[in-house]
Amino acid sequence: MRNKKWAKPLLDSDTKLMIQNPEQFKGKWKDQFSGLSLCLEIGMGKGSYIQQMAKNNPNFGFIGVEKDRNCAAVALKDSLEKSIKNLKLINLDATNIDAWFAPKEIQTLYLNFSDPWPKKGHAKRRLSSSCFLEKYDTILSDEGQIVMKTDNKSLFEFSLISFLDYGYKLIELNVDFRSQYNDDPITEYEQKFMDLNQPIYRMIVGKKKGGKGE
Amino acid sequence: MRNKKWAKPLLDSDTKLMIQNPEQFKGKWKDQFSGLSLCLEIGMGKGSYIQQMAKNNPNFGFIGVEKDRNCAAVALKDSLEKSIKNLKLINLDATNIDAWFAPKEIQTLYLNFSDPWPKKGHAKRRLSSSCFLEKYDTILSDEGQIVMKTDNKSLFEFSLISFLDYGYKLIELNVDFRSQYNDDPITEYEQKFMDLNQPIYRMIVGKKKGGKGE
Repeated sequence: MRNKKWAKPLLDSDTKLMIQNPEQFKGKWKDQFSGLSLCLEIGMGKGSYIQQMAKNNPNFGFIGVEKDRNCAAVALKDSLEKSIKNLKLINLDATNIDAWFAPKEIQTLYLNFSDPWPKKGHAKRRLSSSCFLEKYDTILSDEGQIVMKTDNKSLFEFSLISFLDYGYKLIELNVDFRSQYNDDPITEYEQKFMDLNQPIYRMIVGKKKGGKGE
Repeated sequence: MRNKKWAKPLLDSDTKLMIQNPEQFKGKWKDQFSGLSLCLEIGMGKGSYIQQMAKNNPNFGFIGVEKDRNCAAVALKDSLEKSIKNLKLINLDATNIDAWFAPKEIQTLYLNFSDPWPKKGHAKRRLSSSCFLEKYDTILSDEGQIVMKTDNKSLFEFSLISFLDYGYKLIELNVDFRSQYNDDPITEYEQKFMDLNQPIYRMIVGKKKGGKGE
């Protein structure tokens, strides 16, 4: 995305929707959402998925993470315009996610069309690589789930093996998600692939039994 | 397939390539193949896959099972013509497979384009339903694997969940197998889907650790 001159001033100006220091809410995120259970999206892009999810699911609190400043600024702008109450945004790299959330604080984690990092040497950067899985395992509740959608075959194949190797349990697999489900919000990126009649892959995995967040 | 009048006479006439009473070789199958490790295909149809596999892999013994008499007769006719040495055929329903093979007698099991039995009430008939998985678990060696190919999305999704729930380990997943692999023999049925540019799904699962064949 092109650099937006208004991005930084807008991001800096907001102190309510955009969380500047997520560490300060560790273990206390529910207080920000009137006690609602928490859903997290890492890599929300311009935020259209999480905004729709927050709107459609008022009984859950949503937290969207996006490291790209320009994308995060668009997400903030749109979220302010739509006055979505059960939504908070974070414009930081998710590597330190276990410093932001206490063990078992998150109910559902969404990974939508994450960067596939196709080169083998970059595998550790994939959001489904083992170092991330360990952090998710810590912050997810006992009944916590990870929902992953992608158009990328290799990322999908890698991710499922990675989740299972770590000890996550496969709950649902969809090799042509959109032929079965229509009610899940469609991201902008996803729509492009649907327009090309290309399949969307989705999996839902459950937290490792007796996982790290004990 | 149309009824072939020559099917039964041919099947009855052969006593070498076509095994009439597989129980008699239980625990002794290797003797039929000069001690080679054994690969089994359940639902070989007209046998083109297993014939090519046997030809390409002379260091393994192959056993093809097909319950349909007409398909089995075509497989027998072609196999006789090709004089494939490391191949045996069985024209029986695979339900009693654990009566034919001793524990750990099989190294690799192939399930190619198995009947999806789409109705929920018929789920038990699928070759990846739990009662079959228990039998496979018995007859597979410790390092044994099951290789499953299909064009059917629902069967693929069902099967992977079924294998994992039983305790098999996912070793490889391919949501567009033919975009990655060209050396695996193509079945007639498979070619039709490839001609339509439809994806072929494949998975390889490993036997459950400490499985039944102890």
